[in-house]
Amino acid sequence: MSSPDINDLIRMLARLPGVGPRSARRLALCLLEDRETVMKPLMLQLDKTYASVKTCTRCGNLDSQDPCAICSEPRRNHKIICVVEGISDIWAVERTRAFDGVYHALGGVLSAIDGVRPDDLRINELLSRITTEGTEEVVLALAATVDGQTTAHYLTDKLAATGVRISRLAHGMPMGGELDYLDDGTLSTALRSRTAVKS
Amino acid sequence: MSSPDINDLIRMLARLPGVGPRSARRLALCLLEDRETVMKPLMLQLDKTYASVKTCTRCGNLDSQDPCAICSEPRRNHKIICVVEGISDIWAVERTRAFDGVYHALGGVLSAIDGVRPDDLRINELLSRITTEGTEEVVLALAATVDGQTTAHYLTDKLAATGVRISRLAHGMPMGGELDYLDDGTLSTALRSRTAVKS
Repeated sequence: MSSPDINDLIRMLARLPGVGPRSARRLALCLLEDRETVMKPLMLQLDKTYASVKTCTRCGNLDSQDPCAICSEPRRNHKIICVVEGISDIWAVERTRAFDGVYHALGGVLSAIDGVRPDDLRINELLSRITTEGTEEVVLALAATVDGQTTAHYLTDKLAATGVRISRLAHGMPMGGELDYLDDGTLSTALRSRTAVKS
Repeated sequence: MSSPDINDLIRMLARLPGVGPRSARRLALCLLEDRETVMKPLMLQLDKTYASVKTCTRCGNLDSQDPCAICSEPRRNHKIICVVEGISDIWAVERTRAFDGVYHALGGVLSAIDGVRPDDLRINELLSRITTEGTEEVVLALAATVDGQTTAHYLTDKLAATGVRISRLAHGMPMGGELDYLDDGTLSTALRSRTAVKS
């Protein structure tokens, strides 16, 4: 590890999420040992993506076009907005292929500890979208954590005046979950929200 | 995940060692969300490293100079060559600061399964270095695996004619190791290679 360039590269890789010093060394070595077949293509792809990707001014998604492919798809239902915390959540909902509306990424959730206040989130943008786009339903797809649910409550209050229909993701047993391993909160929510079995 | 550029980037990141599809998505998102503070500096560093780093023709290490900083350091003992499998092993031995000689990376170890034969390794380069550099000792720092030890035996035979002193890393208990958790092979080796305690 004598070259300062290599050390800088390792230090920079180690700052990425989920990459520690050891895996950063491994990544750097993999890149440097195959400079033409691994490093060069990755560099070109990074250049290409850096040049093309922009943030969608409407929903906050990342795409090579603005408005993004989802916002500009006419076959989607633009009357339903799914409100999520961040871009990874848009990707997660898209992977399910269970939602054909559009999205709105807040860019975070309210958090007293991290000092995230309503003005730091894209809430006003959501309100103006609801007005201009004639939105009929807002699906609050926020994390089932204290901060996520605080944000959902805040948004419910904020959106009440617009008269839009507000829904949230169902809480209950995750698929494949076993009762014995479920936490008490999830189990009691699943009990309270039990649904009728159609016979 | 609508943009093909982003998908390509994720697919490319997922091919790196220790990075699966999920962490590739996380990496891509971290890069793309902070394009100016994370992605751009990484791209510049990759460009810089790609342009500067070369393989040392003498020892096989990676550095921005050839011969590398280790090979061209006059204060190091150039009469002792530490033979290792790859560059990560050079880095590992360097981190210990316990060795002041020079290195020779073989570029792999002999392996019947993977079809690695003596001609695939930098063995002839090692032999000619021993002749031209007046080497006094060769330290075989190869893995304590079947392939590593096969390579060590092969090299011992090959180097016999040169008359150079050949040593290998000690085998025994790793630091912090507990007897109860040690495999039998290590424990019996540690017993056989027991050293006298100076009183």
